[in-house]
Amino acid sequence: MEFELIEILQQRIAVTRADVRLGIGDDAAILAPPPGHELVVTTDTLVAGVHFPDATHARDLGWKALAVNLSDLAAMGATPAWALLALTLPDADRTFVEHFADGFGELAAQHRVALVGGDTTRGPLSVTVVVHGFVQPGRALRRDGSRVGDQVFVTGSLGDAAAALRCLDRRDPQAASVFNAPTDTREALLARLQRPTPRIAAGAALRDVATACIDVSDGLLADLGHIAARSGVGIEVDAVDLPASSALLAVFDADQRLALQAAGGDDYELAFTAPAARASDVLRDLASLGSGATRIGRVVDGHGVRLLDPDGSELVLHRRGWNHFA
Amino acid sequence: MEFELIEILQQRIAVTRADVRLGIGDDAAILAPPPGHELVVTTDTLVAGVHFPDATHARDLGWKALAVNLSDLAAMGATPAWALLALTLPDADRTFVEHFADGFGELAAQHRVALVGGDTTRGPLSVTVVVHGFVQPGRALRRDGSRVGDQVFVTGSLGDAAAALRCLDRRDPQAASVFNAPTDTREALLARLQRPTPRIAAGAALRDVATACIDVSDGLLADLGHIAARSGVGIEVDAVDLPASSALLAVFDADQRLALQAAGGDDYELAFTAPAARASDVLRDLASLGSGATRIGRVVDGHGVRLLDPDGSELVLHRRGWNHFA
Repeated sequence: MEFELIEILQQRIAVTRADVRLGIGDDAAILAPPPGHELVVTTDTLVAGVHFPDATHARDLGWKALAVNLSDLAAMGATPAWALLALTLPDADRTFVEHFADGFGELAAQHRVALVGGDTTRGPLSVTVVVHGFVQPGRALRRDGSRVGDQVFVTGSLGDAAAALRCLDRRDPQAASVFNAPTDTREALLARLQRPTPRIAAGAALRDVATACIDVSDGLLADLGHIAARSGVGIEVDAVDLPASSALLAVFDADQRLALQAAGGDDYELAFTAPAARASDVLRDLASLGSGATRIGRVVDGHGVRLLDPDGSELVLHRRGWNHFA
Repeated sequence: MEFELIEILQQRIAVTRADVRLGIGDDAAILAPPPGHELVVTTDTLVAGVHFPDATHARDLGWKALAVNLSDLAAMGATPAWALLALTLPDADRTFVEHFADGFGELAAQHRVALVGGDTTRGPLSVTVVVHGFVQPGRALRRDGSRVGDQVFVTGSLGDAAAALRCLDRRDPQAASVFNAPTDTREALLARLQRPTPRIAAGAALRDVATACIDVSDGLLADLGHIAARSGVGIEVDAVDLPASSALLAVFDADQRLALQAAGGDDYELAFTAPAARASDVLRDLASLGSGATRIGRVVDGHGVRLLDPDGSELVLHRRGWNHFA
C-alpha cells in the first residue's frame, strides 16, 4: 500500500532539480546546497478538525499544507527548493492521495519545489510538511531587527480567510451575512482560506529593506506581538489603515471587519517593519510584484502591540467585538 | 500552551551547534551546511497504536522517534547534525512533554543533534521527526550498488524487537515463553524495541567499503528485497547464520527464532553488501566499533531474496512458521 501511494505522490509532484542528487526511494535524500548560502528550514503540521474542516477537499489540503510552509520561507526572504511530506491517512484512499498530490504539485510547480522525501502512515488524517530554502549569509529576514522609528507594513489584505471560516461554521450568527453574499464574493473569501498565496516574491524583495518580518498566521496583532517581543520594542497599529479586500468590504460592517482583520489569522500575508526613509520604495516595489503593501503603523519605545483609533485612543477586543479601551 | 511546550523541548533538548545560525523562535531556522558536503535528509512518522503501543512511556517514545530517523542517516553513512520535531498531542500534558524531551534529548546529546525547529499541535498522538546529516559528495551509501559476487552482512543481532512486541501482546500464544523468561532477559528484549540503537558509527565506517546499505525496519528479508530490487540483483541468505542475542536464544526455539530474525522488523541494524575481498576488513572494523557484524549471505544473478537451509533448499514463511519450500 505505502509504496503505491508514494508512487502517486512522485508522479504528480513532479518538479525535478539538479541539486537533488538522490530523491525518493532510498533511506534518505541526498541534496547539494548551493555553495555560500545558508539553509532555511521550517515545518508545519495540519490536523483534521483542528487546522482545517474535515470536509476540506484533498486538493485544497495539498495546496494549503505546502502553502503555509512556503509562507514561513517567504517571511525569511528565502528562495524555496525542497520539501518533505509526512502524510497520515485513515486508509489507503487512492483518489484522496491523487487529489492531494495535484493540489500540492500545482503550488510546488509554481515555486520549483522538489519533493525529496516523506512518509505515508496509517492513522487519523494529518499532514506535516517540511520545506527548505536558501538565502545568502546574514540576509535572511528575522523577527528581531525592528527599531524605534521604523514603520509597519502588511502585504495584500487581511481578514478574508477568517471570514470564510465563519462562512463554513453554520453555528456562527454572523455567517448569515456571508451566506447571503453573491456567489463570487463567497468564492473570493473561500479561496483565501483554502488556497492561500505564500508571498515568496515579496519576501525576496524585502531582504534588503525590511528590519523584521513575520507571516500572518495567528492574526495580525498576535504576530506583530512576536516581532515586538523579539525586537524589544512596542508597535502601534492604525485600525483605519488595515487593508481589506472588496469581498470583505461588501459583506461586513466596519466593526466586524476590524475584528477579522486584526485577529482573524490564516491570512499568510507578510507583516514587516522598515525604516521610514524606505517607505516609498517598499510601497512601489511590492505594488510592482502584485501583492502590494499598506503602511499600517509604527515602531515605538515600549513593548506590546496597541491598536489605535484615528483619535489616538486604544481599541481592545471584547467578546462581542472591538470597543474603546475604558 | 504551545509556547510553553516548545520551551520545555528547547530546555531539555539542549545540544547547541555553531552551524545553527538561528534556532527555534522565528518563522524558520537558519543553518550553515559545511562547505563541500552533501546534505542527507529523511523523515519518519510514528502514530500511536500503529507504530508503538498506546502504553509506551513518553521517554521511550522520544528516544525512538529520533532513533528511527538517525537509523536512516546511519544507513546512508551520514553524520547527523540537525532535527525538526512535529509533535501532535491530545492535550497540553506538560509531564508527557518533559519525559518525551528527556528521551529525545538523551539520544540527541549522544550524536550532537541540535533541535532547530518544529511544531506542536493538538490532535491524536503522533510524532514526525526530520533529521539532517552530512556526507562528502558521492560517498553516501545507497541501495543500488550491490554487485553479483558481493557478500551480505548485518550488524548486531536480529529479532529482539519483534520478540518484545509479542511479549506486549497478551493475545499472542507464544508470548507465554517471554513472560516466563527471567526478568533480565525480558528487559533486554524490551530495550531493543523501546530504545533501538542507530548504528551511526557503523554506517560511517562502511562509507568506503559497502556497495549498498539499508536499515532493518520492515524485517531483514523485506529490507534486503529493496537492495535487490534497486541494484538489479538477487540475494541469498543463509538461515543458520542470522545473528541472535543471548536473550533471544534463551527464550525461543530455532523455528520461532528464525521467523523473528528474518521477518520481525524494528531491529534498526544495518544490512549491507560488500566485495568478498573486503569481508575480513568489515568484520574487524565493525567488531572494534562494538556493534559487530555477521556475514549472512551473498549477491547472485537474478532477483528477489531467498532464505536458504544449510542443505541449500529454500525456506518460505507460512502462517505458522518457516518450512521447506514444497
